[in-house]
Amino acid sequence: MKNEQLVHFSPPFAVFFGDIASEVYGKTGLGLVQWRRSECVGQVRLPGCGVDAGVPDLDVAGAVAAGARTLIIGSAAVGGGIPGSWVAILADAARAGLDIVAGLHVRLATLPGLAPAAEAGGARLIDVRVPPAGLPVGTGRKRTGQRVLTVGTDCACGKKYTALALAQELKARGVAATFRATGQTGIMIAGSGMPIDAVVADFVTGAAEVLSPDNAPDHWDVIEGQGALFHPGYLQVTVGLLVGSQPDAFVVCHDPLRKTISGWPQFPLPSLRDVIDRTVALGRLTNPAIRCVGVALNTSKVPAAERGALIARHASETGLPCVDPLVEGMGAVAAQLLAGSGA
Amino acid sequence: MKNEQLVHFSPPFAVFFGDIASEVYGKTGLGLVQWRRSECVGQVRLPGCGVDAGVPDLDVAGAVAAGARTLIIGSAAVGGGIPGSWVAILADAARAGLDIVAGLHVRLATLPGLAPAAEAGGARLIDVRVPPAGLPVGTGRKRTGQRVLTVGTDCACGKKYTALALAQELKARGVAATFRATGQTGIMIAGSGMPIDAVVADFVTGAAEVLSPDNAPDHWDVIEGQGALFHPGYLQVTVGLLVGSQPDAFVVCHDPLRKTISGWPQFPLPSLRDVIDRTVALGRLTNPAIRCVGVALNTSKVPAAERGALIARHASETGLPCVDPLVEGMGAVAAQLLAGSGA
Repeated sequence: MKNEQLVHFSPPFAVFFGDIASEVYGKTGLGLVQWRRSECVGQVRLPGCGVDAGVPDLDVAGAVAAGARTLIIGSAAVGGGIPGSWVAILADAARAGLDIVAGLHVRLATLPGLAPAAEAGGARLIDVRVPPAGLPVGTGRKRTGQRVLTVGTDCACGKKYTALALAQELKARGVAATFRATGQTGIMIAGSGMPIDAVVADFVTGAAEVLSPDNAPDHWDVIEGQGALFHPGYLQVTVGLLVGSQPDAFVVCHDPLRKTISGWPQFPLPSLRDVIDRTVALGRLTNPAIRCVGVALNTSKVPAAERGALIARHASETGLPCVDPLVEGMGAVAAQLLAGSGA
Repeated sequence: MKNEQLVHFSPPFAVFFGDIASEVYGKTGLGLVQWRRSECVGQVRLPGCGVDAGVPDLDVAGAVAAGARTLIIGSAAVGGGIPGSWVAILADAARAGLDIVAGLHVRLATLPGLAPAAEAGGARLIDVRVPPAGLPVGTGRKRTGQRVLTVGTDCACGKKYTALALAQELKARGVAATFRATGQTGIMIAGSGMPIDAVVADFVTGAAEVLSPDNAPDHWDVIEGQGALFHPGYLQVTVGLLVGSQPDAFVVCHDPLRKTISGWPQFPLPSLRDVIDRTVALGRLTNPAIRCVGVALNTSKVPAAERGALIARHASETGLPCVDPLVEGMGAVAAQLLAGSGA
């Protein structure tokens, strides 16, 4: 079901990495291949590219021949701009009829020659950072279907990954579930979504409502969280997404080695309990039954010998399933969600 | 001190009412004359206009002769558009060198002929709904000076009026104070401000920080609130403004006859205590000393015989000064603010 009020685009995909030297700049494309490999016909790389997503190398003609409908720019150029050599290939792709998708600061249509090429090829230029027009104000109306949101003690602590993994776990259990993306990488992986932090302030709750519309009673929307409720810069995004999403359940994501808000060192990281309580207090406005169903820890930098005790301590403190989605998977959290219980 | 990061424009003003039939559509212009009468050289009205702000009637040439620098569109046309007869006069004014200020949904520069007229006259076209470019992300850094914010149990319950009246009361007491506008009417009255609900979500806290910058230790910024913390559509705006403003104090505005959120009838109005507690809980993130210093009631529709008891009951329930700014004035609240105490 395609929702015309969302940013959206269609598989099969070819992933464009340009000539970036390092995987650091290729996370979006690597994430796309990780989560939607069967729909990626290949990668388009330029001489000097240091990233390999492990799918066939193609040029534009090869991508078209392999059935691609969309070329996704899976990398950020160093410095944020787009080199001329990239633009020429993007224009070739658009002229060949491939929709071009980017999450850049610069809009695709402003790159020299790209708009005419898209016009000539009947291709769309899709900036996933640009919200759709005509978003409504939030109504607070109770929608049908079930929703679970990932929240965090900070930004960049696993909310996207946790939501993707939970949606996958639910589907593996035969539960109808849809990952709902709210950030550029998530939108590229999902093929649709809402760049919630780019929405004009008045419409954030409404945009969240559009993102997770009425659905079947037993269907779960698994909504990618943004920002954090104790974040001095971004909490307004988090609050609007929370209230507009009216989640029945939420999962708290946490980096146990972080002591302060990343990039805001004068702000201590809140406790899991503070985040759970604040999420419930605010979320009750549109869903009085909101409950926490688990904790997702990022333990990638925790010494192996300390992992078990750390997981156990957080589980004990919250009385909830606690997992690292990359290690234990989301099974315990999915079970808690489907059992309808939580703290 | 002109802050280039804010929307701003300069007196003296002429107020344009067009040919609107009713005061309902002229609230912006009437408010401007009410609060800045000494800077309004007159009003420009077309045949059939049913609004009279009580200042001299002028045509464009007369406004220029009277020293006006800015023509402010103080009315909304029925239906939201701009009639051709209005545009012709606005173009005359711009050609004569008057800056044109509007809070319309349509941008001034898109009205036929207006941009060339402004170019010819060296005039600016200022849309107060359009946020300035380049707003930062909120830092949460503690700023010098004092801040007081108006909050509400709902939208449209007196936050702008209360802030204006409190700033006026503080100045009357010899206290350095600045009204800080966050909505279109407030910005037109103040001559500068930040249209906070039109800011992209990521930058709301940062926009609030820009609005009330570092100041002298004994100076008070009196910040116009927007939205409401228990509002299912707009709370994200309120939260961002609160945390970015880092207020030392706040005043709660309330319409005692309202039972539900206006326009959202399924949402009950929160209690004053709930609003105070939630404001403190969220505001502590950037100002641990935040305190409530009073309640501003709109009693315009309360029967005269019940006013006294109503005021007394709200004062007793909150332990704070409770006033109708239009009746008692803001003296008691200002005294509480300056005494440095509150609940």
